[in-house]
Amino acid sequence: MIWKLIQNIIEKDAPIVVGLDPMLSYIPENIKKDAFARYGETLEGASEAVWQYNKAIVDAVYDLIPAVKPQIAMYEQFGIPGLQAYVKTVKYCKEKGLVVIGDVKRGDIGSTSGAYATAHLGTITIGSNTVAPFDEDFATINPYLGSDGVKPFIDVCNQNDRGIFVLVKTSNPSSGEFQDRLIDGRPLYELVGEKVAEWGSLSMDGEYSNVGRVVGATYPEMGQILRKIMPKSYILVPGYGAQGGTAEGLKPYFNEDGLGAIVNSSRGIIAAYKKDPYLSRFGEQGFADAARQAVLDMKADINGAVFGK
Amino acid sequence: MIWKLIQNIIEKDAPIVVGLDPMLSYIPENIKKDAFARYGETLEGASEAVWQYNKAIVDAVYDLIPAVKPQIAMYEQFGIPGLQAYVKTVKYCKEKGLVVIGDVKRGDIGSTSGAYATAHLGTITIGSNTVAPFDEDFATINPYLGSDGVKPFIDVCNQNDRGIFVLVKTSNPSSGEFQDRLIDGRPLYELVGEKVAEWGSLSMDGEYSNVGRVVGATYPEMGQILRKIMPKSYILVPGYGAQGGTAEGLKPYFNEDGLGAIVNSSRGIIAAYKKDPYLSRFGEQGFADAARQAVLDMKADINGAVFGK
Repeated sequence: MIWKLIQNIIEKDAPIVVGLDPMLSYIPENIKKDAFARYGETLEGASEAVWQYNKAIVDAVYDLIPAVKPQIAMYEQFGIPGLQAYVKTVKYCKEKGLVVIGDVKRGDIGSTSGAYATAHLGTITIGSNTVAPFDEDFATINPYLGSDGVKPFIDVCNQNDRGIFVLVKTSNPSSGEFQDRLIDGRPLYELVGEKVAEWGSLSMDGEYSNVGRVVGATYPEMGQILRKIMPKSYILVPGYGAQGGTAEGLKPYFNEDGLGAIVNSSRGIIAAYKKDPYLSRFGEQGFADAARQAVLDMKADINGAVFGK
Repeated sequence: MIWKLIQNIIEKDAPIVVGLDPMLSYIPENIKKDAFARYGETLEGASEAVWQYNKAIVDAVYDLIPAVKPQIAMYEQFGIPGLQAYVKTVKYCKEKGLVVIGDVKRGDIGSTSGAYATAHLGTITIGSNTVAPFDEDFATINPYLGSDGVKPFIDVCNQNDRGIFVLVKTSNPSSGEFQDRLIDGRPLYELVGEKVAEWGSLSMDGEYSNVGRVVGATYPEMGQILRKIMPKSYILVPGYGAQGGTAEGLKPYFNEDGLGAIVNSSRGIIAAYKKDPYLSRFGEQGFADAARQAVLDMKADINGAVFGK
């Protein structure tokens, strides 16, 4: 599956992924009003608004981008109807040719991790039928429980040509509380990074592994070290834009082949219309066009700063 | 909410929790047959079987136990219908007076952790309505992302009288890969334990905190150290029975007041009928009675070994 992601990145000339992390406060009033008129001020109404908002954004940007990353928490907060909107979004994006990275940060042990892997990347057999429950292409995974927690996902990746991104160094301010603590003189995230490289060798797909990692854009010096530890592993980079990561700081995340990293932006794209320069140009009704312009701007920013093009 | 859990434990004289972690292979054939006849060999059919199986077990044991712990992965593997069975199970158990610990192992950063907290422990406001999406009493939480990831859960616990159990030392064989690594001469799980104690002081509820931790029964010597680091924090103990933890080994997890720990068993209870002595006594049709007997046996085993009663 990493091979398909790389093909999409090359074809669109855009090492970027749009985070579909809808908050009710991002959604234009008229979309909410229509959805509430049909389904009431309910979880169903809110989820319909989320779906309509997502669909308009995907329609506006899909030809520019290789992948999307829906954050499942933003759907889970609307209960079952929210997760139905998540499933619809995953399916719609795949129909548009996009690679879907489910930002689910799951992780447990043994058969429980196996059940999560089945849910998100695999299929389940019920009598004579086989069904793919959530059917994302990639899922993000938490490594705290060690190999027992991660290997069931890798097994499913191998059976089903899917991939995972394992949290190594996250983009948030307190990520250092545990991740930066020194073990034999080296930070925990480096040890996790080494394990990811080891796990990655179990699922190669061309030059790169189906096992990638998450390293926040807010820590470029750590990105550089981790790039060297795991040359064959793709980096999913959150934290660009809204969280303070810059395009210039992204250079160390890429390999010399111009590959190896994909940079996420969520509210910087989907809620671009909320702030200038997009607000004054597009207004609330132009939220999807604003998202498109924000994608074009992000692509130019990163391709300029990282590749000088 | 920890106060309510303690009251339930004292009333039932049972520091135990039943893990409702249904696998299709645990469910008696006639339940599956009925469900498939009504809903087909589909996610809906499998989820109906899960629900009927859970309901029969809860009906058979609810008067003996203070709490249940449904493992959401086992429902998520059946997609949206599976999560509908999860919601029904949570609601039904609460109606029976049980405390529900959602074993969801969620964890992210900032507003995303906030969304998970809303989903599982909080309420969301949509127009003029306020809804509790999944509505568990407790949720399990992964600490790898640090305070940013945990504090949004604590805020919701305080607003809504709920609780969390933070993973500290898990019960699986590879838990040591990261959790046991030494930092300034002490294992990572001790540092996480200290943080949990710090977070716990932000949500006290009587003598104990609404912020508990997960420490596997498979590591009693670590349980002893962690008990001292976090005297006011309840320990949720997985790994008893099927994973190899013994009742004798549980002593260090409890405080001198006889409180401080609650021990989980999942397949040892819900799939008790699959093995002797329960199989020959109850058979497949007696799966719920077998679960009741397994609860009585577990209670006697733990109360005997830990409290000499």
